[in-house]
Amino acid sequence: MFAEIITIGDEILIGQIVDTNSAFIAKELNKIGVSVYQITSVQDDKEHILAALKEAKARSSIVIVTGGLGPTKDDITKHTFCEFFGDTLVEDKEVLCHVEALFKKYITTAPISEINRKQAQVPSKATVLHNAYGTAPGMWFEEEGTVFISLPGVPFEMKNLMTTEVLPKIAAHFDRPHIIHKTLVTYGLGESAIANRIEAWEDNLPPFIKLAYLPNLGKVRLRLTAKGPDKVQLEKAIDEVSQKLYPLIADILFGIEDNENLEEIIGKLFTEKKMTLATAESCTGGKIAEEITSVPGASNYFKGGIVSYATETKIEVLQVPKKIIDRYSVVSAEVASLMAQNVKKLLNTDFSIATTGNAGPTKGDSEADIGTVYIAIATPKGVITEKFNMGSHRERIVQKAVNKGFEMLQKEILKF
Amino acid sequence: MFAEIITIGDEILIGQIVDTNSAFIAKELNKIGVSVYQITSVQDDKEHILAALKEAKARSSIVIVTGGLGPTKDDITKHTFCEFFGDTLVEDKEVLCHVEALFKKYITTAPISEINRKQAQVPSKATVLHNAYGTAPGMWFEEEGTVFISLPGVPFEMKNLMTTEVLPKIAAHFDRPHIIHKTLVTYGLGESAIANRIEAWEDNLPPFIKLAYLPNLGKVRLRLTAKGPDKVQLEKAIDEVSQKLYPLIADILFGIEDNENLEEIIGKLFTEKKMTLATAESCTGGKIAEEITSVPGASNYFKGGIVSYATETKIEVLQVPKKIIDRYSVVSAEVASLMAQNVKKLLNTDFSIATTGNAGPTKGDSEADIGTVYIAIATPKGVITEKFNMGSHRERIVQKAVNKGFEMLQKEILKF
Repeated sequence: MFAEIITIGDEILIGQIVDTNSAFIAKELNKIGVSVYQITSVQDDKEHILAALKEAKARSSIVIVTGGLGPTKDDITKHTFCEFFGDTLVEDKEVLCHVEALFKKYITTAPISEINRKQAQVPSKATVLHNAYGTAPGMWFEEEGTVFISLPGVPFEMKNLMTTEVLPKIAAHFDRPHIIHKTLVTYGLGESAIANRIEAWEDNLPPFIKLAYLPNLGKVRLRLTAKGPDKVQLEKAIDEVSQKLYPLIADILFGIEDNENLEEIIGKLFTEKKMTLATAESCTGGKIAEEITSVPGASNYFKGGIVSYATETKIEVLQVPKKIIDRYSVVSAEVASLMAQNVKKLLNTDFSIATTGNAGPTKGDSEADIGTVYIAIATPKGVITEKFNMGSHRERIVQKAVNKGFEMLQKEILKF
Repeated sequence: MFAEIITIGDEILIGQIVDTNSAFIAKELNKIGVSVYQITSVQDDKEHILAALKEAKARSSIVIVTGGLGPTKDDITKHTFCEFFGDTLVEDKEVLCHVEALFKKYITTAPISEINRKQAQVPSKATVLHNAYGTAPGMWFEEEGTVFISLPGVPFEMKNLMTTEVLPKIAAHFDRPHIIHKTLVTYGLGESAIANRIEAWEDNLPPFIKLAYLPNLGKVRLRLTAKGPDKVQLEKAIDEVSQKLYPLIADILFGIEDNENLEEIIGKLFTEKKMTLATAESCTGGKIAEEITSVPGASNYFKGGIVSYATETKIEVLQVPKKIIDRYSVVSAEVASLMAQNVKKLLNTDFSIATTGNAGPTKGDSEADIGTVYIAIATPKGVITEKFNMGSHRERIVQKAVNKGFEMLQKEILKF
């Protein structure tokens, strides 16, 4: 049993926005055992949408469509579904009440306009899915064994509809296999060298377990995916093949990844251990703080940070002595270490993380090569500093430095 | 003439990664007058890829495929192209030299392994596109009037290949129409209310100009797209319809968007005016600093910032008096204003921006409602503070606050 995702909108096809909805939907479907066969992005064009619906129906049991549900002329999804099912639009009283209530709450007490009233029209064959956060209702259709689900393209409306309406309905409607992923993160060896090393093991994988290599920013993730009717058996099989893999990659195995990202894992560790954290960022420009604070509850352990982008700010706010900077340069282990120690003192925390490096494109206040980054972690026991060469692409240097910083931080907090 | 994009990789279909390659490719193609008809993401599965290639060929003149070019067993794109074209793999001497040189430079001087040598094998009908940053060559095929282009999925390798190889070749190979976009950003009125207001104007648009409404985080973008053979005529037509639109939306028109984002525009303004900037962030957690420093050359005007996440940090580092916080609460105009003034002094800059608010999910150190955000801008002439209610979704509150902060900052810097 497969699902497909169709995202509608010219803004995707001209590259004005990145389609993040599909990844969210695919991930959530996977969690309940539904594999996504294909993701298709199509234009705001009736014939094109009709063709995509027809093709998806021929391949898959579930077709989730996002976008094109707004009240304006370029939003044609409802009309297209009517044509696809030979249906007509009817006004839904409950949706109308909801639309009126939303307008009353947020915008105006005046009667809503004709154009907004249209938001309450749905194809007569649709089951309405309640969109708590917007005026465009979600819709569920069944035809010849295929379920079609139409959702608004606004990400937070779509996410809420998926979680509260769509996933429970799919879970109740279909018998689903189980899908289990296990991702092993390696560091220090290229994709091809790993493949060489584990070739015999890979050739002996059972047919229901797939292996994928995912190289990214210095790490290679090995993702094992098992799919089948019996969850316990799948878990056992994944465990068995993993046990055979571990000795082959012991020297490069960095960790095992579940669905949490590193900043969430670190957040839990700090919360558990009742420790606090501060940041002092130069080349990462606030990105470490931003990722830390993207985790709800970060205020339990994160007291704040200094973005000391200019050398002056390192001297005046972070109190790194000018003579140290003159002697070792602003991109140096000595400066990184002092940044970490001083921000820890200044904000009175247990831990701190500091970065200084050259992300390019020009050398700035430093003679260090582009890509050179020093990361320091100050802990209750001392300071650890590491030097990295992170390539020559600005964005990648920053993201790699953030990733590496979190890895170092995780390693250190685990010691306490 | 249309192009299509096919992205290959199970990691996309299980939602492990967001496909950002397609948006980049679509945007670049648009710039040279090539419209993208469809974007399709398919599995690492030969039959599936073959079906997608066949369908794309029937619709479009250019098919760009990304992914599946690594050296490991799950990478099957080259074999699939061989089957599609009835072709076989041959070793390309130049690619082999390049692969050997890359390994010599970055990894080892030993002879490369058999598995890496395979990276130099390409279908005999392929024209090789040089991948300066990686071992997987890009490939260009022509068959029955359709051009197929295969690119690696690693974003920075793909981007470089698009810019240096693919776009010039497409430009030389095809006669292309011109595509012009103009996006007007409005603020303060909903999509449907705008549509109501401009209905007569919209109904009179010439058939070669399309209008799209793009609502996002409080703004509605109105995107006009014109396509045709004569660039001058298109520009004239877009200009004419815009002139008729302006008076209809004068009260809500926020700005006209080109491809630059606000942080780049602000960067240029600060550079031109030789002014400097500092940040003091609470609820935005470093995101303003991060977006500022994502612009190359930010070190010309950005001296740094304080992420004062904890109340303590506001008192101790930013020197906001405790009695002010006790009296007005940590989420208040008074605190935002002092944060801005004090960080400006501390870092000795011309301008500063400060945020304090409650992004939820819990109320934290403040009694303010979730979604309440105060933003202050300190300028050489004084401080401007504004209060906002930014809804109830953590991520959206932060992003809205960042956007709004940049808007306020742009408005103020333009006065100097």
